[in-house]
Amino acid sequence: MKYGIVIFPSKKLQDLANSYRKRYDPHYALIPPHLTLKAAFETDMDVNSITEKMEAIAKTHEPFTLRIRKVSSFQPTNNTIHLKAEKTQQLEELHEDLYASLPGDKPEYPFVPHITIGQKLSNDEHSDVYGQLRMLGVEHEEVIDRFHLVYQLENGSWTVYETFRLGKDPQ
Amino acid sequence: MKYGIVIFPSKKLQDLANSYRKRYDPHYALIPPHLTLKAAFETDMDVNSITEKMEAIAKTHEPFTLRIRKVSSFQPTNNTIHLKAEKTQQLEELHEDLYASLPGDKPEYPFVPHITIGQKLSNDEHSDVYGQLRMLGVEHEEVIDRFHLVYQLENGSWTVYETFRLGKDPQ
Repeated sequence: MKYGIVIFPSKKLQDLANSYRKRYDPHYALIPPHLTLKAAFETDMDVNSITEKMEAIAKTHEPFTLRIRKVSSFQPTNNTIHLKAEKTQQLEELHEDLYASLPGDKPEYPFVPHITIGQKLSNDEHSDVYGQLRMLGVEHEEVIDRFHLVYQLENGSWTVYETFRLGKDPQ
Repeated sequence: MKYGIVIFPSKKLQDLANSYRKRYDPHYALIPPHLTLKAAFETDMDVNSITEKMEAIAKTHEPFTLRIRKVSSFQPTNNTIHLKAEKTQQLEELHEDLYASLPGDKPEYPFVPHITIGQKLSNDEHSDVYGQLRMLGVEHEEVIDRFHLVYQLENGSWTVYETFRLGKDPQ
């Protein structure tokens, strides 16, 4: 199975992200707007072993504030346009712990927490769209108290397997 | 916010449902294949109050076997084609407890547990598609040990807020 670990932010932030994703992100229909904590990984590990490790990690991290201040792009690495999240110690430690405990490759790039709003754009589209979106004043913050283990179906879409609440005793 | 309560079955059953939904269900991209335990309901109730009630209910119900034996249709009530689940006492009691404890209208119809694979079909399409699918031999069973609280985004798609595990102490 192919798994991923994500944060689904509040409805408000998801609705904002979707207003752009609808036009600029071909993954729009495959998964709701999210911040990826651990990129897609294939494993045959029993799902209960995965969730046990995730419960243990969730318990040792407290809820934290997610802050979005601007629209950014990963160019020249790629043309993904995103809501850039402030890279707090809490996000970074959560990301590191999930990579350290679970199967899958090491991160390909340094961790830049973000919510994608556009991807797979041609260079011209990217310049055009990013030129407009980077001017947007985005000021958002909210408390994150949970994250999710998701897995991919054959059609490419993602289903939630389980939710983990930060700072709580595991179920 | 508009909430719903659903079971997401195994990847195997979701992939099977999606192979039909892709062609016959306009809600294909809005939510993964699911069995609805409580239909969509609008409420201003604090989400923590909702999840507390759901945790209490989850704790008093044990994991159970979900059995699918055939493709069925709700005609003449409507043209929804579905994988019909065996109506077990466990499913029925879970459904009843969720309706009894949470906001929202009483069920419009008697509870017929199912996973939709086609809907909003014209009468001609329905006859045609149902004529083919009803001949399928569907034999599937699996253990269900969790259900999910989902809420609807402005674009009509659904996001998982939290997972509840049956028969476990609440978090």
